[in-house]
Parts: sequence; structure tokens; C-alpha cells
Amino acid sequence: MFHLKTTSSECAARRGQLLTRHGTVETPVFMPVGTQGTVKAMSQEEVWNLGFRIILGNTYHLHLRPGEELVRQAGGLHRFIGWSGAILTDSGGFQVFSLEDLRKITEDGALFRSHIDGSEHFFSPEGVVDIQRTLGSDVLMAFDECAPYPSDHTYTERAMERTHRWAQRCTRHWRGPGAGGREAEETTGQLFGIVQGGTYLDLRSRSAAFVSQLELPGVAIGGVSVGEPKEAMLEVVAHTAPLLPRDRPRYLMGVGTPEDILDAVREGIDMFDCVLPTRLGRTGTAYTSRGRANIKNAKYADDLTPIDPECSEWCCRSHSAAYVRHLYKADEILALRVLTYHNLAFYAKLMAGIREAIEGDRFLDFRREFLGSYRTTQRDGVTEGGASE
Amino acid sequence: MFHLKTTSSECAARRGQLLTRHGTVETPVFMPVGTQGTVKAMSQEEVWNLGFRIILGNTYHLHLRPGEELVRQAGGLHRFIGWSGAILTDSGGFQVFSLEDLRKITEDGALFRSHIDGSEHFFSPEGVVDIQRTLGSDVLMAFDECAPYPSDHTYTERAMERTHRWAQRCTRHWRGPGAGGREAEETTGQLFGIVQGGTYLDLRSRSAAFVSQLELPGVAIGGVSVGEPKEAMLEVVAHTAPLLPRDRPRYLMGVGTPEDILDAVREGIDMFDCVLPTRLGRTGTAYTSRGRANIKNAKYADDLTPIDPECSEWCCRSHSAAYVRHLYKADEILALRVLTYHNLAFYAKLMAGIREAIEGDRFLDFRREFLGSYRTTQRDGVTEGGASE
Repeated sequence: MFHLKTTSSECAARRGQLLTRHGTVETPVFMPVGTQGTVKAMSQEEVWNLGFRIILGNTYHLHLRPGEELVRQAGGLHRFIGWSGAILTDSGGFQVFSLEDLRKITEDGALFRSHIDGSEHFFSPEGVVDIQRTLGSDVLMAFDECAPYPSDHTYTERAMERTHRWAQRCTRHWRGPGAGGREAEETTGQLFGIVQGGTYLDLRSRSAAFVSQLELPGVAIGGVSVGEPKEAMLEVVAHTAPLLPRDRPRYLMGVGTPEDILDAVREGIDMFDCVLPTRLGRTGTAYTSRGRANIKNAKYADDLTPIDPECSEWCCRSHSAAYVRHLYKADEILALRVLTYHNLAFYAKLMAGIREAIEGDRFLDFRREFLGSYRTTQRDGVTEGGASE
Repeated sequence: MFHLKTTSSECAARRGQLLTRHGTVETPVFMPVGTQGTVKAMSQEEVWNLGFRIILGNTYHLHLRPGEELVRQAGGLHRFIGWSGAILTDSGGFQVFSLEDLRKITEDGALFRSHIDGSEHFFSPEGVVDIQRTLGSDVLMAFDECAPYPSDHTYTERAMERTHRWAQRCTRHWRGPGAGGREAEETTGQLFGIVQGGTYLDLRSRSAAFVSQLELPGVAIGGVSVGEPKEAMLEVVAHTAPLLPRDRPRYLMGVGTPEDILDAVREGIDMFDCVLPTRLGRTGTAYTSRGRANIKNAKYADDLTPIDPECSEWCCRSHSAAYVRHLYKADEILALRVLTYHNLAFYAKLMAGIREAIEGDRFLDFRREFLGSYRTTQRDGVTEGGASE
């Protein structure tokens, strides 16, 4: 269920609420990635205390380890991991298709080998709905085939068409015999469809139309952040978002940087997830009000000020840049904790600012002001993207 | 400064208070090891919230990285790491002597190479007092030569005699020209002497007498927990403790297991440190009211109860054994956090129980009851000891 509260008068930015069985999520929202049932380096309390009310889980990873049966015995993923907010699970499609040599795709689904122990598994559209249902997800994602970048038009079209057929099968299975969508939603969470079509706008139009007519509780734009140029991604978003149902939440999968999020919000996107803040934190990079800072840089060796002077959270109240750098160089876990916490605090603050700005109908001003002080001072060859970690 | 509050009527157990420039520490006390300026996997807040009021730092490690000069600029180690309790630093002796091929010992001190970058450093008795003073330690340890186990009587005696001469030099340097001990203590923390002598009780007697006459604020028993049999360690403690000044705190370095601590408290020891709870936590072992539990064990795979049902802390309130096992097997940082936190909570509770029991003059009963329920069910070849981590 989605409640659209207000829209910008200057652009397509929207302020809404995603209503789930585990509470209300204020949108636009960034969802921290908790691949294996934990947001890496964080405790669930810390994620909650930063204001996050929804996190991601990865169906592929949780299916392989610990397996949905144990999670079911524990009373669902929320109870298993001790998280009282909402949980969105992906369909596993992205991970399975990333396996390349270890998988075989047929119309029926995907046969693949576990990256952990080589054991054989099969994901079908119906099967991944069942797994997500067993996990107890609040938002389930339809099984999709994500074409790699670059792919030609023919390949991308074929993958998109299969994604549509799979989306139909997921929808039918999720609705169950004779049950309406609302009932399915209340007992088993909300199913989101996924628009594919690569960087081909004609395919994106067709896919948006197809997925929209399924009348699912939400729609995602998939197949972005897979290596395409940033401009192509934004073009896809700007083109596709207006084609999606106005009264349903729009989720841009795997995106992104603060700049990407600001751009996509302007186009009317409501939900985001990305491994960047957590992964960069663990590799020594902090998002700050002055751009990204690489804590390994020698200039922080005797910098006794906080990593981000504008951060008022635990990470920056209690630890100087020099101390965090020392911890990082000495391979101490606390370094990863502080940096991850800080980056998530940065994203939480960004999203709160975005929501407040839309409410005050000054989103474009907010965006301008944010980007003005946020200068990307150090990039250090960071690889972006990747849907799980 | 030490304030002896009460002693057991049945044994030598003592209940006291160590008064430092950073607050009062209730004894008997266990001090978590924060080798490089962090108790591994913990935040300073977490350590504090578990009730700890004193932690260890390692002079060797902090001298090499980040260096005492940066720490001085930060306003001392307490401010650098954000810890408002007390800090005890070792002298670096144990680490330097562990370097074996990388060090050369003369009467003047120890020349050694850094294990990090091979750079050359020299530790003298006066120098390590200066480093600890620069770090801002509340309790400084005298530079000592810790004979390895086994060592013959002649070697052990020679190392002990050098330790005595070094203790004298440390004491003179710490007191400063014309300054009394109390003044030195207030400006630069309390210096503790270290009794050596290996497993030879005649040497321990001589060393206890020598170190006692230095009239330092505290006395440590060093050179235990270096590989000798547990019985030999306890024999040394039982023999040495009564020879130490009654009005000064007694610190048993690098000890130990819950059983060791209970035995040593009975002999009149006030202070302990050991890497066991933190190191075992990071390698998957939890101390529980029913003995040690190896979370890797298959029997925890579907155990949805807490690791220790008698633990009421965050670690066991919010996480089942099966979840922690899943996190551990999936290489998630949260596993190390939960297990370390739990083990320190276990030690904190043990020490609080010991203190309360001595106050109620029922320490031997407490010891019996604790050991009755605490059965070492799994040991799994864990290596004990090691003064830093």
C-alpha cells in the first residue's frame, strides 16, 4: 500500500508513505542492504536508531545460507535477525544471472550452482515468490532476467519479454487461486514488478506499460546500475518514471550515489537501495558534506577533527579522522563500524532532507544547495554498483 | 592509590578500590585488552556500558602506530580514543621479548625492529616510562624482562635481576628529581613494579621482596601465562601474593580463564587482564553459564535460543545461537561483535559477582556455585595467553 502525500510543483519529486505489515516507511527512502540478514558491520539497533525503517535482504544468499526453512522456524526473517522494521527481498535474479558459468536459464527458470559449496539449485518465478513468502518479506520482488550491459536490442528485448512472462507467473502465484491482490498483500507481503529493457527507451516504454497493467502494489526499474554510463541510467529513469502508475511506489534498484538519488527523486522515484555507503565504509571511504574522503589518505594522519564536521552522530562525535585512520590501518573492526555507521548516517540525513524539502516544495533548491557543498574531492577508483554484498 | 575495603574471613580474597585520575575502579577487576587503542570489535561506549572502568593499552603497539606524539597532540590516549575511564599501559617488555629474532637486549634496554615496517626502535626503562607518560596512562608498568617458559634457574635469575635494576631505573625516572611518589602519581599516573622469577619460588620470594621495597603504587606478578602448566601458575600466585604489600593493588598479568581468576582472587589478587574473552569471541567461542560454546558446532545450526540463556544483555536478548552461527559462517562482522560483547558481558558479570561475594564474605561459596554450573563442555584446542591482540 502506498500513500502519496504531496508532489513537487517544480519537478516530479514525490513525498509518500509505503505502508507495510512492519510499519510505515516514509518516502523517498534509501534502504540499507542487508544481504545475508545483517547490514554489514552494523547492529540492527544502530540501523534503526539512524532512522531506517526498511532494509533489504537477498533471496539468493538467504536461500543458500541459512536457508528459508530455518528462517521460517525462527518465525520469519524479522524475528530471526531481530529487526522490527520492514524488509524488502530481491528475487535472486540479479545474483543468479551474475553467476555466468554456474547457471543455465530456461523458460521455466534458472538452474544454478551455489557459490558456497557448488550444490545445485533451481529458481522459478513461482519458487522465488514462495521463498520470499517463507522468509516473511514485506516487499517481494518478481523474478526477472537482468540483461548485462552492453547487450544488443534483440537480446535485451528477449530478456525483457521473458521477464514479462515471469512477472505474470509471479503475479498469478502471488495472488493465489481466487485471492485478490489486497488479500495476498496482507498475508504475504507486497509483490513489486520490475521494468526491464536495458538502455533502449522503446523497450522501457513497452516494459513499463506491461508491468503497470499487472496492477501490482509497486513497480521497480531494474537493469540499471549494471555498468552503463551514468547519463544512460538517468535517461532511462527520466523516460520510464512518468510511465509508471502514479499511485504506486517506484523503486530504482541498486542506485546509487547521493547525486544519483537526487536526480532520480527529481524524476519521481520513491525507493532506493545501494551497497555504496556500506561497501565504501568498509574500504575506508567516508561520505562527507564536502564530498568523499578516503581515510587512508596521509592528510588524515594527524587530523584530529571529525571525519565530517557536519555529522552529529556517534561516529563523528566520538572519533577523530586520525583515530579512525589509525584503526583502519591497524585492521581494527571499529574502523569499519565507524565508517559504515557514518555513511549510513549521511544517507539517512540526505533522505530526511529530501523529504523535508519536498514537503516544503523546495526540492530543487535543496538539491542545488546539497550539491554545492558536496564536492567529490576524492574518488580513488571506487567501483560502484553490485546488488548484494 | 588503593583503598582496601574488606577482606574475606575464609581466604585471602580482597575487595578494594583503585583510585585513578580517571575515576575509581572497583576491585577485583578484569581489564579488557585494547591493544591498539580499541578493544577489538567493541566501541568504547559498549565497553563502558558493560560496566568496565579500566582498559589496557599496549605501549609497544601504540608507540609503533599511531605513535605517542600524535596521541599527545590529541590530548592523551583517553581523548584520542574517546574513553573516559582509566587506562593501564603495559611497558612493551612482553611484546619486545616476543620478537625473538628481531630484538637485541643489553643492560641499557632493548633494540628491536617493528613487526609492521622493520624500522628500528629502542626501549629503555626510562624511555618506556616517558612513552607511557606521553600516552597519559593512569597506570604505567615498569620495563621488565619476561623469561620464556621453560627457562633454567640461572637464566631466569639473570632476567629477574635485570628486571630489578630496570625497575629501579623506572622508579627513579618516574619519581623525578626531588619529587615524591605521590606527586609523580598525580601528574603522570601510577607506576607499578613487576615481580618476575618464572616458576622458581625462591626467585619469586626475592623478587617480591625487591619490588615491594620500591614502595610503588602497585605491584604486578609477571611472567605467568607464558606457557607454563596451570598448576605452576597457581603455585606461583599462591606463593607470591602473600609476600606483596597488603595496602597496594596486586595485578596478575595476562590471566586468565574464569577458573584462573577465581583461584587467583582467592589468593589475594586484585587486577586481571587477558585477551581470552575478546580473542575467543572473534574465533567463534562464547563463554556461557554452562561452559564454553563453539558457535561453529553443527548443534547450534537450528538452535533458536540465546547463546547463554542466563545472559540478559543485548548480545543474547536480540540474537539466537542459530543467527550468530549463520553470521559467523557467512563472515559477517556482527558475529564477532555479538560474541565479543557476550564474552565481555560474561566477564563483567563474573567480576561483579566476585566483588559482591567478597563483600558478603561468601566468596568461597560463590566460587563453588559458579564452577558447579560452569562446565567446560567444549575446548576445541583453543590457544590461551598472549598479552596483546
